[in-house]
Amino acid sequence: MKVYKYPAASDWSSLLKRPVMEAAELEGRVLAILKEVQERGDAALIDFALKFDGAAPKSLLATDAEIAEAKVLVSEELKAAIQVAKTNIEKFHTAQKEVQISVETMPGVNCWRKSLPIEKVGLYIPGGTAPLFSTILMLGVPATIAGCSQLVLCTPPNKEGKIHPAILYTANLLGIKTIVKAGGAQGIAAMAFGTASVPKVYKIFGPGNQYVTTAKQLVTKYGVAIDMPAGPSEVAVIADKQANAAFVAADLLSQAEHGADSQVVLISDSEDMINRVQTEVDAQLEKLSRKDLAAKALDNSKAFLVKDMNEAMAMSNLYAPEHLILQVEDLDNLVAKVVNAGSVFIGPYTPESAGDYASGTNHTLPTNGYATAYAGVSLDSFIRKVTFQKITKEGLQKIGPVIETMAAAEMLDAHKNAVTLRLKEINK
Amino acid sequence: MKVYKYPAASDWSSLLKRPVMEAAELEGRVLAILKEVQERGDAALIDFALKFDGAAPKSLLATDAEIAEAKVLVSEELKAAIQVAKTNIEKFHTAQKEVQISVETMPGVNCWRKSLPIEKVGLYIPGGTAPLFSTILMLGVPATIAGCSQLVLCTPPNKEGKIHPAILYTANLLGIKTIVKAGGAQGIAAMAFGTASVPKVYKIFGPGNQYVTTAKQLVTKYGVAIDMPAGPSEVAVIADKQANAAFVAADLLSQAEHGADSQVVLISDSEDMINRVQTEVDAQLEKLSRKDLAAKALDNSKAFLVKDMNEAMAMSNLYAPEHLILQVEDLDNLVAKVVNAGSVFIGPYTPESAGDYASGTNHTLPTNGYATAYAGVSLDSFIRKVTFQKITKEGLQKIGPVIETMAAAEMLDAHKNAVTLRLKEINK
Repeated sequence: MKVYKYPAASDWSSLLKRPVMEAAELEGRVLAILKEVQERGDAALIDFALKFDGAAPKSLLATDAEIAEAKVLVSEELKAAIQVAKTNIEKFHTAQKEVQISVETMPGVNCWRKSLPIEKVGLYIPGGTAPLFSTILMLGVPATIAGCSQLVLCTPPNKEGKIHPAILYTANLLGIKTIVKAGGAQGIAAMAFGTASVPKVYKIFGPGNQYVTTAKQLVTKYGVAIDMPAGPSEVAVIADKQANAAFVAADLLSQAEHGADSQVVLISDSEDMINRVQTEVDAQLEKLSRKDLAAKALDNSKAFLVKDMNEAMAMSNLYAPEHLILQVEDLDNLVAKVVNAGSVFIGPYTPESAGDYASGTNHTLPTNGYATAYAGVSLDSFIRKVTFQKITKEGLQKIGPVIETMAAAEMLDAHKNAVTLRLKEINK
Repeated sequence: MKVYKYPAASDWSSLLKRPVMEAAELEGRVLAILKEVQERGDAALIDFALKFDGAAPKSLLATDAEIAEAKVLVSEELKAAIQVAKTNIEKFHTAQKEVQISVETMPGVNCWRKSLPIEKVGLYIPGGTAPLFSTILMLGVPATIAGCSQLVLCTPPNKEGKIHPAILYTANLLGIKTIVKAGGAQGIAAMAFGTASVPKVYKIFGPGNQYVTTAKQLVTKYGVAIDMPAGPSEVAVIADKQANAAFVAADLLSQAEHGADSQVVLISDSEDMINRVQTEVDAQLEKLSRKDLAAKALDNSKAFLVKDMNEAMAMSNLYAPEHLILQVEDLDNLVAKVVNAGSVFIGPYTPESAGDYASGTNHTLPTNGYATAYAGVSLDSFIRKVTFQKITKEGLQKIGPVIETMAAAEMLDAHKNAVTLRLKEINK
């Protein structure tokens, strides 16, 4: 970690700048994949699986036999853990249901809004270096609570043309019927355009490598919505002198192991703490299986020594981290000052991995500073709150002249006339 | 209007297709404008105002003197109407405030979420053919309720280098301090990149012409969020034989007058009703000041004769109109079947213009079929619901093993270790 001691506030912005991703070259390659899938459908998916994943799957959709096999392969311990996580995620996301809001804004002018599920949603689940079955819970559980009628899951097959058992098991547990062996940009294309085997969806969710995130961005031009723009995963930890340096180091490392481009930031008002965390990071790093990835991420990571906790929080709010961990004495005071963050982990016994897996909050969160304008995935991400209104004769008599005046001032005659005609009919 | 009688369901999709907008050529021109503003800031804004709006404004920001002048120029009648609309919009959007959700998902595992305002938001208000001060209410009122700390408004100046009084008056009424004389792509660029006079914002809202909507799409690549992708405005009216043909015609025309590219759709199970609406449209059209625009939109508009109201609603749900107007006998039954629509207007005395101006619902709504995946602007558009969690020692003892099992299965050692370390410390 590079250490910056008492940087001037005017320099924070440039010190906290994320690396810019060069997307232009990738865009061309991804566009070619999208076009191929759009034109050749299932045949293109099979060709790409052979080319990129090492095998042409016998069937593009997971079969009942494969699901049955997965049930046997997943350990009882993991099944039980998944069940606990699922229950917690269900509890937190069910609480997000909105009671229908209904307001009579004027006598006879009734306005309400109603939550309607997005009918068709697509979930992308990465395979690659780790089988992220936890993401199925994070996307599939709120989709199910929302009442989405069609859930499509795309994930890359392995070299045997099969899907990882933990992914198959979790998808089946949630009742997801359409499980497609298609990864990368081709998986996104399949859900955006539809193929003979893969239904076209209205919104695509889920993390992925640069091919996947570029494909998601590109399909928005074809009218498909996506959960949010993506960048590498991030954590900022604010720790004061009483924090547990080993815990802080463990949290920094659990972010760093995601990949060499992971963003890791430590902010403290104690130079001693920063030094102790660094010593702990070095010690813990040695024991990790993904040591090389994590070490690369740590090379680019930064520790900031600041004056006090107010300055620490101001810096964090400017950075707008995906994950913010607070290990400080005066927790409540600091929590109240959070403005920009994706999800906040409070106190020594709340590691980020709790929210990554099992506490109940969602782990699909805004990166790359998007926490200034976006929230993480929630029940809201799978619904639309549609407004309705019904006006009575008496209501229109009251509100009609207001509409007529405003429409006339905006020089929209026909808007005015739609009221005038009705008022004439009412008053005749 | 072109009339289609009993089209086969398999043809609906192609019959309801919106015209594809050719953006590629425009993108180059818009990118050049963005770059100019990014590099030259205020000077570029002044040059573009001279070039596109016909005058170089003396000051880029509206002055106190100009605001005072606007207060005199706006009629008392219009002021009163704006006040009524503002109050109704406030009532409906205040009701959207979420009480903080807090769930103890397991003993000692506390998760909650809190609404935090987006700090800096930009509102684009078109000038052009009509001064859309109503849009200031629709964006500014929820932004104020949300508690956004910085509101920036950009709108094109007129040939005298001034802003329309109704726009100035309404912006000032809402307490918007930064009112910028910059329209088109350059206005969007100013808010996305910031200039000496214009603060950079995190999210940009508001309608506009193709330059504006293209600029909004392009600035998303620079990390700025936007309200939603935009297309021409739309209405679908479902009317049965008992509907008032004059009312239906007036609603179709109030959509058509927005521009030649407005999308107007009529769906009925009564051929007689379709004929009567067409006769009414022709008669009412003659009296409109924006007759030519409306006539062009009507040339491209479609009327569908369908078997019954179930088929009518199925067709509307496939189309996913921005505005849906229901003038039918069995209202409640049909309302319950709405799946895809931006905002729904129910019954004979609920013209779309009520929601456009004054009933309280928002008029910034998803077009171009985006109602399948997006809702209109609401209080939610100006906030982020940020999740927090705090776990006690006892809580971590309970949930810790679940996290360890799942992290191990995803082959993320460091994620597991962040829990293992803590459990060791607790149990020692």
